[in-house]
Amino acid sequence: MPDTSWQDRAAAKRRQQLDSIPKDWVLPNLPPRSQLDVNEYPRKCGLLTAKEVQITESSVETLLVNLSQGTWSSVEVTTAFSKRAVIAHQLVNCLTEIFIERALERAAGLDEHFKSTGQVVGPLHGLPVSIKDMLMIKGLDTTNGYVGRINQPAPKNAALVDILESLGAVPYVKTNIPQTLMWGESYNHIFGRTLNPFNRNLTAGGSSGGEGALVAMRGSPLGLGSDIGGSIRIPAAFNSLYGFRPSYNRLPTTGSVGSGVGQNTIYPVYGPLTTSMDGIKTFMRSILSKEPWEYDPLVIRKRWDEAECQLRDHNNGKELCFAILWDDGSIVPHPPVTRGLEIAKAALLRAGHKVIDWKPTNHAELCRLGWEILAAGGSADVDAVLATSGEPLIPDMSLEVEKFDAEAWQRVKNTQVPRPGLTTHELWQLNGKLRQLRHEYLDHWRETISETGTGRPVDAIIAPVAPFVATPHGKNRHYNYTFIWNVLDYPCCAIPVGSKVDPQLDAKRPRASFYGDADRQNWDSYDPDDFINAPLSIHIVSRTLEDEAVVGISEVVDNALKARESAI
Amino acid sequence: MPDTSWQDRAAAKRRQQLDSIPKDWVLPNLPPRSQLDVNEYPRKCGLLTAKEVQITESSVETLLVNLSQGTWSSVEVTTAFSKRAVIAHQLVNCLTEIFIERALERAAGLDEHFKSTGQVVGPLHGLPVSIKDMLMIKGLDTTNGYVGRINQPAPKNAALVDILESLGAVPYVKTNIPQTLMWGESYNHIFGRTLNPFNRNLTAGGSSGGEGALVAMRGSPLGLGSDIGGSIRIPAAFNSLYGFRPSYNRLPTTGSVGSGVGQNTIYPVYGPLTTSMDGIKTFMRSILSKEPWEYDPLVIRKRWDEAECQLRDHNNGKELCFAILWDDGSIVPHPPVTRGLEIAKAALLRAGHKVIDWKPTNHAELCRLGWEILAAGGSADVDAVLATSGEPLIPDMSLEVEKFDAEAWQRVKNTQVPRPGLTTHELWQLNGKLRQLRHEYLDHWRETISETGTGRPVDAIIAPVAPFVATPHGKNRHYNYTFIWNVLDYPCCAIPVGSKVDPQLDAKRPRASFYGDADRQNWDSYDPDDFINAPLSIHIVSRTLEDEAVVGISEVVDNALKARESAI
Repeated sequence: MPDTSWQDRAAAKRRQQLDSIPKDWVLPNLPPRSQLDVNEYPRKCGLLTAKEVQITESSVETLLVNLSQGTWSSVEVTTAFSKRAVIAHQLVNCLTEIFIERALERAAGLDEHFKSTGQVVGPLHGLPVSIKDMLMIKGLDTTNGYVGRINQPAPKNAALVDILESLGAVPYVKTNIPQTLMWGESYNHIFGRTLNPFNRNLTAGGSSGGEGALVAMRGSPLGLGSDIGGSIRIPAAFNSLYGFRPSYNRLPTTGSVGSGVGQNTIYPVYGPLTTSMDGIKTFMRSILSKEPWEYDPLVIRKRWDEAECQLRDHNNGKELCFAILWDDGSIVPHPPVTRGLEIAKAALLRAGHKVIDWKPTNHAELCRLGWEILAAGGSADVDAVLATSGEPLIPDMSLEVEKFDAEAWQRVKNTQVPRPGLTTHELWQLNGKLRQLRHEYLDHWRETISETGTGRPVDAIIAPVAPFVATPHGKNRHYNYTFIWNVLDYPCCAIPVGSKVDPQLDAKRPRASFYGDADRQNWDSYDPDDFINAPLSIHIVSRTLEDEAVVGISEVVDNALKARESAI
Repeated sequence: MPDTSWQDRAAAKRRQQLDSIPKDWVLPNLPPRSQLDVNEYPRKCGLLTAKEVQITESSVETLLVNLSQGTWSSVEVTTAFSKRAVIAHQLVNCLTEIFIERALERAAGLDEHFKSTGQVVGPLHGLPVSIKDMLMIKGLDTTNGYVGRINQPAPKNAALVDILESLGAVPYVKTNIPQTLMWGESYNHIFGRTLNPFNRNLTAGGSSGGEGALVAMRGSPLGLGSDIGGSIRIPAAFNSLYGFRPSYNRLPTTGSVGSGVGQNTIYPVYGPLTTSMDGIKTFMRSILSKEPWEYDPLVIRKRWDEAECQLRDHNNGKELCFAILWDDGSIVPHPPVTRGLEIAKAALLRAGHKVIDWKPTNHAELCRLGWEILAAGGSADVDAVLATSGEPLIPDMSLEVEKFDAEAWQRVKNTQVPRPGLTTHELWQLNGKLRQLRHEYLDHWRETISETGTGRPVDAIIAPVAPFVATPHGKNRHYNYTFIWNVLDYPCCAIPVGSKVDPQLDAKRPRASFYGDADRQNWDSYDPDDFINAPLSIHIVSRTLEDEAVVGISEVVDNALKARESAI
């Protein structure tokens, strides 16, 4: 046990963080906490030049074109995003490690290389990239939100960070997460809570919540998140972003810090959060061009297949058949979520596609198995890291947890007992059962060929990301709408619908019957005024290792949504 | 507990097997047990016509050409192989389920289809295929060599059997395995022991030992085996065959019967045993053409890549750099194994390739982890299936186990106590450690780029399949030469060297020092006279999911060996 209390260690780390912010970028006047929508604030706060606004509001594609042509230097671009990231942080508390000086040095080196050779070092030349605080960056902490991991600088980069750098990217900030990483919101004892920039009374989601808030505020053009239960797609959806969950082991995870090392049933995966489909595609294509299977023994040796992304196996993207998952048979989504699905349906029909309903098969049982498997190792890993600081486990993501004083936390700690977990034989039984249900799901999908009329099974499912839009803090309690696809290992991409919660359009409706108590409670918890301005989102899902197709189909859906919007 | 003793149930099953053999195909005079080499016996026994000899001694390629041109009918080919399989069985005891009538009906249907349409139903049209007794075939037992699984006809086909049938193949026999499947020899209480056709005092290997003996005797042109520790490659090597272990989850395993369901660290894989590289390639290409990922949720969505097989990533097969694993740092191979490696080295140098030495990295530790992981579930699964019949666990593969009477077996049973296995947390620690060592191995391979002089890392490793050739029964005790590649998930192909043990060439040599007791005991156990006529073999290994490249490189090695042979 260290001499210093965990509270003091956390406070010292926060001071260190504050010191890492350039003084000129501290906002002189913060908007009042009662100002809920702060998304436009950075543009108007006066700290950004017009060019910096232009740069930070550009898509990845535009940024890369300008960087590769020397129109914008990496130092310029990195400065603009760093500044905006720091501004965003002051409004929604999205960052952990801030290392702008080091990033600018690297940017200057890239500019120098470009100037002297006329060449970019790679397809992401000069692009600032933010990184979830779960991947190691040499010399920096990877706290995972645990006090016990403060002041443990990483000995080397994670494989993905090395690859991003070899592609020319410029890491400059790391982003906030929840303690344990196993929540759909982002609060921990060190860095506090990340807020939603569209409505600060709402969560930014989690566990890649810092990325969600930061990218939404254009403090980063491209963020790297991770997902084992929805941790990319939830913050993407809650912040009106594009977020992609690749299949297991498509991208390397070497150099991750987290619990559950060696759990190899439901793999955590890394993936991008960004402001356009183009950003998703560029990220995936670039990383895979570096043959990541050479750097992580679990990565599948499979190049990015442009023909699959052009939808060779899906009628070249014409006259597709989508199936909509309206509800999962356990929790009926809130009205704005259903409205999002209806908008998508109308847009797809308008674009000449077919839309049928998706019948969920064993979703509750699949998810129950999945949660049991994730918990099968017991609490030893988490207990061990908590013990190194004396910090207690945060019991939930409610606002209450921010108010606890030392004595209250001691009481929390006293109530927590270790969970022993399962035997290997029990785990393997669950794995066997899960495999059987995955088999049935695959069969179910294949058999839709009789319903689509296209000669193919359903091309993709359109599904809610959650049974609600971004919730008030502490209320994001149902993850099965995302987790189901982790359990099945189906790649999926969250995309914005282009609409926000509107109390008129999204009025509460009475329902006569419910699937059960959880469904009733979720429905009762809906009051449109509490969710005002929260973005509407959907996700697009296809089968294992159809990553390229999911990206291609998501572009089709995105285009259909945009065409509908501009036609209105 | 059933009324009938397990011995009686096993005897009844054996009688049933005997009844499934056409009476005309029973050999009037069996050669004396003292005749060790029976490999040529089927050709000369008088039961096969000249055409049947021609058919059964043809390669897969020749058979398929003749079948697809209607030169040979499937009934003819299936009859010939069925006859020879039954003859082989009487000499080396290689079969379990024998269902020739059913196969001939299917063959007649295929012939009818061909006659009426002029078309084959698929690339394996009419080809008899033998199946390890681990995959379900509808209506037949899948005993795994357990008495408790007698008389449990499978409700449906395994995915691979369905796919083989959809390609036009004709299953006709299932083949012998050891009880538990976890031995490199093939003995169980129901079907007894499979012998090596080149020397019946030697083992045919295991666990796909029935396949090894059957294909070697040309009782099958193509056998389907499985491999979690060497079970394809050991019988391939011990019987002078080509045997391929694909990467994890390249081929479907749905419909397997076995222990360790849900064990998802070191996956069992299926693969072919046959008499030519062409058979291997045809098998892999055909199965993958049926998109098996549509039928098994764990199968990797990756088509057979002909360009990879043509060695696009390996200088188109010219001037490759091989590395030879002379010994694994724990057990030095017997002289004939080393001679096999020397023959391969000479052949490769002669063909213009480069050959360096492979430095094994952490082989012992990787294998130790692997065995611990396979055992982590404890003995519950095996205990449960044994309990259904009262049959005891067979303690080893020695000849002694055949002599045990009921009382002796009861004593064996009394000594066996259940193993509880590990906790999930302990398993995950092992998985984590294994992943780290796999990472180091991958780094080690990548770094050989500095030694090869080709601008690439080593193209493939040439390694012993075992530290001995086919051993006397009960003496195959070291599996780490095959298991290392299962643990690393490196695809590999066993191929014959084209030579057999010769007491002159393979004399025992004194050694001054040993790695340890196991090494010394293994060396002391060598007497060339005990291994006479055992085939020499090697295996070719490359990295995870380089399946196509391993097949392509194995062809290069095979051609080099044959060119050298014909030049001598």
